Amino acid sequence: MSAHSILTVGSLAFDSVQTPAGKADFVLGGSGNYFSIAASHYSPVDVVGVVGEDFPKDHLDWLTARKIDVSGIQIASGKTFHWVGSYDKNLNEAQTLSTALNVFEHFDPRLGERHRDVPYVFLANIDPVLQQRVLDQIRNPRLVACDSMNFWITGKPAELRKTLARVDLISINEGEAYLLSGQKNVLRAALEIQKMGPSTVIIKRGEYGSNLLTPRGFFIAPAYPTSHVVDPTGAGDSFAGAVMGYLAEQGAHREMIHSQPDQWEKLLRRAVLAGSVMASFTVEDFSFKRLMNLRASDLVERQSALIQMIKLD
Amino acid sequence: MSAHSILTVGSLAFDSVQTPAGKADFVLGGSGNYFSIAASHYSPVDVVGVVGEDFPKDHLDWLTARKIDVSGIQIASGKTFHWVGSYDKNLNEAQTLSTALNVFEHFDPRLGERHRDVPYVFLANIDPVLQQRVLDQIRNPRLVACDSMNFWITGKPAELRKTLARVDLISINEGEAYLLSGQKNVLRAALEIQKMGPSTVIIKRGEYGSNLLTPRGFFIAPAYPTSHVVDPTGAGDSFAGAVMGYLAEQGAHREMIHSQPDQWEKLLRRAVLAGSVMASFTVEDFSFKRLMNLRASDLVERQSALIQMIKLD
Repeated sequence: MSAHSILTVGSLAFDSVQTPAGKADFVLGGSGNYFSIAASHYSPVDVVGVVGEDFPKDHLDWLTARKIDVSGIQIASGKTFHWVGSYDKNLNEAQTLSTALNVFEHFDPRLGERHRDVPYVFLANIDPVLQQRVLDQIRNPRLVACDSMNFWITGKPAELRKTLARVDLISINEGEAYLLSGQKNVLRAALEIQKMGPSTVIIKRGEYGSNLLTPRGFFIAPAYPTSHVVDPTGAGDSFAGAVMGYLAEQGAHREMIHSQPDQWEKLLRRAVLAGSVMASFTVEDFSFKRLMNLRASDLVERQSALIQMIKLD
Repeated sequence: MSAHSILTVGSLAFDSVQTPAGKADFVLGGSGNYFSIAASHYSPVDVVGVVGEDFPKDHLDWLTARKIDVSGIQIASGKTFHWVGSYDKNLNEAQTLSTALNVFEHFDPRLGERHRDVPYVFLANIDPVLQQRVLDQIRNPRLVACDSMNFWITGKPAELRKTLARVDLISINEGEAYLLSGQKNVLRAALEIQKMGPSTVIIKRGEYGSNLLTPRGFFIAPAYPTSHVVDPTGAGDSFAGAVMGYLAEQGAHREMIHSQPDQWEKLLRRAVLAGSVMASFTVEDFSFKRLMNLRASDLVERQSALIQMIKLD
């Protein structure tokens, strides 16, 4: 296993989604999928999750071919998690129409020996109790990050606080940051969340980009202004995948946060731009179709263009 | 008159406004006021408009003391324009509850000899027929800019097109840019509006900042993340005031747009940051209370901080 490997624990799902651009039924989705595929453009990934017997074997093979280790994906008897959602005028926020947890309902992440030593850890927005159970099994990580969502913020606030106390970085949506912090301003919300544990806070603002707070400063990252938005599903997870992928590739380490805060800040600023670029590709097609045929040169080209769009001189 | 003087034609009004932070009744407002006060931090301003007999003489004196020439403000018999509005959860968009045009209804901007030679011209969002009537009276401007709003975009589209064909720069709200262009994406909208005339297009996105399109490039400017938002009224007009004030101060010229596009791009990028900074002060109190006691050092400090929030290295 590589010193740059990332472990992620999240959902692998079927999505049925309706957007102003069209409709897709029972397409592949889930935070574990979006995160891994995005992160794998930068670093090796191990994904832990559960699928039902109906999950296409082809897709697991495809992940493997991309150097994504799928040995942590349990195949349980029953059906795969199914999410049904839609986006109306506001493409920044999904409306959940129904959720069938199926095999995900009794998911218990058990890490094999291999997984316990993976240096970079990303806990997608699953039950905070499970997020902690994953952390309990991890030995000596270099960096731990998480996401969360309104369901857990309101449903299991005390457990979520325990998770937050153990992570270095959180990547969370603007609306959820407001809910979690009780603040209605992005800077205040980030400062409040930072007090809960993660010294680095990334607030995702959809088409308006993201904001980054570290112990050293505050960075305002734009979204890449793609003019072809088909489906925003997975934008946030693939954003986080690129951020973690980039940090792992660069060998970022939690000790840097306090010992080399300027270097950390610099790395994180570039990481969130990598996140913006990845998310801009994600939204250009349904499911992760656009990510699947993405070349490194596509990423480099958009990242350079985005940097041109924020520089002053 | 200075070679850096700006002429603006807009409204001088009383506003009654309700926001999540509180309420203000019959306070001073209007695009002409917000624009001039903001611009005067950078360059001399001449304001043209109309008020009723109920308009406080004190305020005209205060404007004069700030080197804002008020000789173009007509005092008509009747009442001053009165706008009543509110902001609910979405602080980026005002709900107009009522508008009493009063003396503004028969406003006919007649420019004196002095005003016809002012080099920088900003047409606030008044009737496009009046905007053109102003332009007809202007001799040899260095730079002409305008704003507009949904009322004119839907009500007088042909007249608005005639105005747009005659301006170098437009500063317009995101929602209005979508309405004007028929596009639902900020980059596409800007490109579409550029085809209508203004080679430089600024799309204002409230707390998410602004986007700038010039013949040379696309710039994504953040808003300054003030954590103390009291009243968004006038943010867009004071943003435009700082943009024009900065451009006039720097001696920007319409000929530069094509002869020195890199220099133009560089100036415009700094101008929209000046706009962000000014708008962030505007929203921190009702009316233009916060702008009235602003020091140059306050502007410099926030502009430097904002630049730190977007730089990569």
